[in-house]
Amino acid sequence: MRRGTNLPRMGDFNQSVILEAIRRSGEGLSRIELVDATGLSAQTITNITRRLLDEGFIAEAGRTISGPGKPRVTLRLVAESRFSVGVHLDPAVITFVLLDMSGAVVRRTVERVHDRDPRRIVDLMAETIDALIDGAGVDRGLVAGVGVAAPGPLDAQRGTVLDPPKLQGWHRVPLRSVLAEATGFEVTLEKDTTAAAVGELWTGAGATRGSFLFVYLGTGLGVAVVRDGDAITGSSHNFGEIGHIIVDPDGPPCACGSRGCVEVVCTPQAIVERAEAAGIWTEDPVPGDGVVEERFTQLCERAAAGEPPAVDVLRGSAGHLAILIAALTNVLDVDRVVLGGPFWSRLADVYLREIPEPLNRRSATRELRMLTVEGTVVGDDVGAVGAACVVLDAVLTPRASDLYLED
Amino acid sequence: MRRGTNLPRMGDFNQSVILEAIRRSGEGLSRIELVDATGLSAQTITNITRRLLDEGFIAEAGRTISGPGKPRVTLRLVAESRFSVGVHLDPAVITFVLLDMSGAVVRRTVERVHDRDPRRIVDLMAETIDALIDGAGVDRGLVAGVGVAAPGPLDAQRGTVLDPPKLQGWHRVPLRSVLAEATGFEVTLEKDTTAAAVGELWTGAGATRGSFLFVYLGTGLGVAVVRDGDAITGSSHNFGEIGHIIVDPDGPPCACGSRGCVEVVCTPQAIVERAEAAGIWTEDPVPGDGVVEERFTQLCERAAAGEPPAVDVLRGSAGHLAILIAALTNVLDVDRVVLGGPFWSRLADVYLREIPEPLNRRSATRELRMLTVEGTVVGDDVGAVGAACVVLDAVLTPRASDLYLED
Repeated sequence: MRRGTNLPRMGDFNQSVILEAIRRSGEGLSRIELVDATGLSAQTITNITRRLLDEGFIAEAGRTISGPGKPRVTLRLVAESRFSVGVHLDPAVITFVLLDMSGAVVRRTVERVHDRDPRRIVDLMAETIDALIDGAGVDRGLVAGVGVAAPGPLDAQRGTVLDPPKLQGWHRVPLRSVLAEATGFEVTLEKDTTAAAVGELWTGAGATRGSFLFVYLGTGLGVAVVRDGDAITGSSHNFGEIGHIIVDPDGPPCACGSRGCVEVVCTPQAIVERAEAAGIWTEDPVPGDGVVEERFTQLCERAAAGEPPAVDVLRGSAGHLAILIAALTNVLDVDRVVLGGPFWSRLADVYLREIPEPLNRRSATRELRMLTVEGTVVGDDVGAVGAACVVLDAVLTPRASDLYLED
Repeated sequence: MRRGTNLPRMGDFNQSVILEAIRRSGEGLSRIELVDATGLSAQTITNITRRLLDEGFIAEAGRTISGPGKPRVTLRLVAESRFSVGVHLDPAVITFVLLDMSGAVVRRTVERVHDRDPRRIVDLMAETIDALIDGAGVDRGLVAGVGVAAPGPLDAQRGTVLDPPKLQGWHRVPLRSVLAEATGFEVTLEKDTTAAAVGELWTGAGATRGSFLFVYLGTGLGVAVVRDGDAITGSSHNFGEIGHIIVDPDGPPCACGSRGCVEVVCTPQAIVERAEAAGIWTEDPVPGDGVVEERFTQLCERAAAGEPPAVDVLRGSAGHLAILIAALTNVLDVDRVVLGGPFWSRLADVYLREIPEPLNRRSATRELRMLTVEGTVVGDDVGAVGAACVVLDAVLTPRASDLYLED
C-alpha cells in the first residue's frame, strides 16, 4: 500500500530541494531566484534558508544591486560544512577519496592490493581512511559517512559482498559492518557501476532531468541507469549485470555454456586475447598480476599510433560494445549514453568515433531521435568519487519517496 | 532542477492514497483502518473521505460493531462512479473493453481487421467504442477517457504511431488526435507491452510493492517493468524493445545483420518456421492471413498431446526465452517474472515447466534469491484491459512525482 504524507515530511523535502538548487547553481542564488527555481513561496524560502544558515550548510555571499529596491543577498553552499569518504574496491587497486559537499575531491590516495585476505584488506582500508581525513585536516565530526563501491553481486540488506567473480578469496564478506566497526563511521555499500553513475550525476551538469545509460568499463563491464536525477538500484542493488548478454555469435565459448557473451568478448582481458590471436605481439607475455592491464595499455597506445592491426582489434571491440549498448538502450529507452570507468580514457578516442553510427542504426527509436554518446566527466576515479557521492546523495538529494509516511 | 511541494499538492496526493487504499481493499475499509493503512491522521482521513463521499467515488457500506465504542462504518469504492475504454490495436485483431473503476471488465468486443488503411481503422474504432458504451448502458459523462495500446515505436509527445514493423501501411499516424476527434474522448496512447503491465498491476494482488518483469508474447515480443506500483515507460514511452537481442548463436540470420535475434527465434512466426523445418507438418501451409496463428495453435495442441517433435520445438523455444529473460533480469534486477500476452495461454504449460530452472541457473543473484516465474492473471485481453487501466491509473494512482510544483 502506498502511504500518505504530512507537513513535517513536506518541510524536510522542501529543505532538500532548496539546498540542491543552491548546490547545483555553483555561484549561489538569491532568495528571489530560489522562488523561481523551486516554485516555493517567498515565505517558505525565507524560513528554510534561515534554518540552513543556522546549521552552517549555506552562507550569505554578498549583495547584488539590480534596479531599485533592496539589494539581493546571494546564498551559496558552504562546501566545507560536510565531507564524505569514497572507497572503490577493485580487484587490483583500492582508490580512496575525500569529497566536500560540493562534490570536489579534497584528497585522494591509491593502494595496490597484493593480499587476498578480506580481513587484512579491511584493516588496510580503515587505516587509509583515517590517514586520508587526518591528512586533509578535516574534523571527523563533519564526515557524513563512508561509501564503498564494490563489484557485484551484493547482498545489500546485509551489507555483504557475495561471490564477485573478480575478487578471489571473497565469499559473503560482511563488508559494511566490519568496516563500520573498524572506522567508527556509518558505511554505505553500493555496486561499483551504480556508484560511478551517481558520481557522474553529482558532478555532471544538468543531470537532474532526462536519463542516461552509464557503461562502466573496468576489469569487468557493467551498466547503470540514471532517470530524473536518481540512479536505479534495482530491487536488490544488483542492477546492471551484463556479463552474459551475447554480442558476437561468432565469438569464443563462455563458461555459461553459450558463445560470444560480453564476458568473453568485451572485457579488457578478452580484447587482449583477441589482440594476441591477431599477432599484435610476437613474444609471449611474462606471467604476472598486471599483465592484462599492461598489454591492454600497449594495445591502446599502438592503436593511437595508427598501427593497423591494433586499430582493427579496437574497432572490432567497439562494434561489439555498440551491439551491447543498442540492446540495452532499446530495452531501457534512455536519452543518452555515457561511457566511463578505469579503462575508459584509453579507449575514448576509438570508441567515441566508432560507436555512435552502429548504435543509432540499431536503435528502435531512430525515427524519433539520435542517441548521443559521451565520455565521463569524472575521470578514472569515478568509482571512488561515486561511492562518496552515494553518501552525500542520501543526505542531500530531495526524493519524493522520502515524503511517504513510514509504516 | 527539482521543484518543491505545497499544501494543495499534498492534499491531492493524500486523496489518491486514500482512494487507492479503499480500491485495493476490495471489501472496503473503515476510517480507523485507513489511518493504519496510510499513516495519515484521523482528522485528514475524515476530511478527505468526506470529499470522496460527496463526489460519489466511495459510499458507506454498512457498520461493524467490534467491542465497545462507536460502530465502524465501512467505506467502499463505488465501482460504477467512473469508467474507461481500452483498445488494443494488434496487427490482426482489435480488442475493445469497457472497465469500471474497480478494474472489472463491464463489456468487451473484438473486431478482426482486413483493412490496412489507418483512416478506415480509426472510423471502425470510433464506431465500436460508441457501441460498446451504449450497449453497456453507461452514461458517456462517466467515461474518463480512452486508452489505446499500440505496437511501438511510438512518438508519445505527438501521440503518433511511427513505423511499427508489424503494422503494414501505418506510417506516422497521429492516432491520439484523430481518435480523440472521432470519439470526443481524451485519448491516451501507450505501448502495448507497457499497457499490459499496467493491466497486470491493476488487477494483480499486492503489486504496489516490489518489482516484476512482464514478458509480452504477441505477434511480436516485448517487455515492461513495474517497480513499486509504477510501470516504467522510459524517456519516450518506448521502453522494452527486445527484438534484436541475440539468444541463439546458432540461430537463423536476421535482417539487422546479426544472427539468432529474438525476432527470428522467439516470435510465433519463428517458432512455426522451426516446427516446419523439423517436419511437424507434411504438407505446405495454405497461404493466407491467419496461417501462422493457426499453425502455432496446432503446434501447441500437438505438444500438449505429448507428440515428441512438437514438445521438442516448444522446449527449445522455452530455452531461448529463458536466455532472453535471464539477460533482462540480470540487467534490471527485478523480484519476479510474469508472462502474458495474446499467445501466452497456449504456451503456459510448457514454458512454466521449462523456464524457471535455466533462468535461475543464469541469474547473477542466484546466491541471493530465486526468481519466480508466473503466468498473467489478466488473460488474453491483457493489452486492452491494460490500455483502459492506463486511463484509470492516470486519474487514480497516487504518484509522489505529482507532488512537485509545476514550472
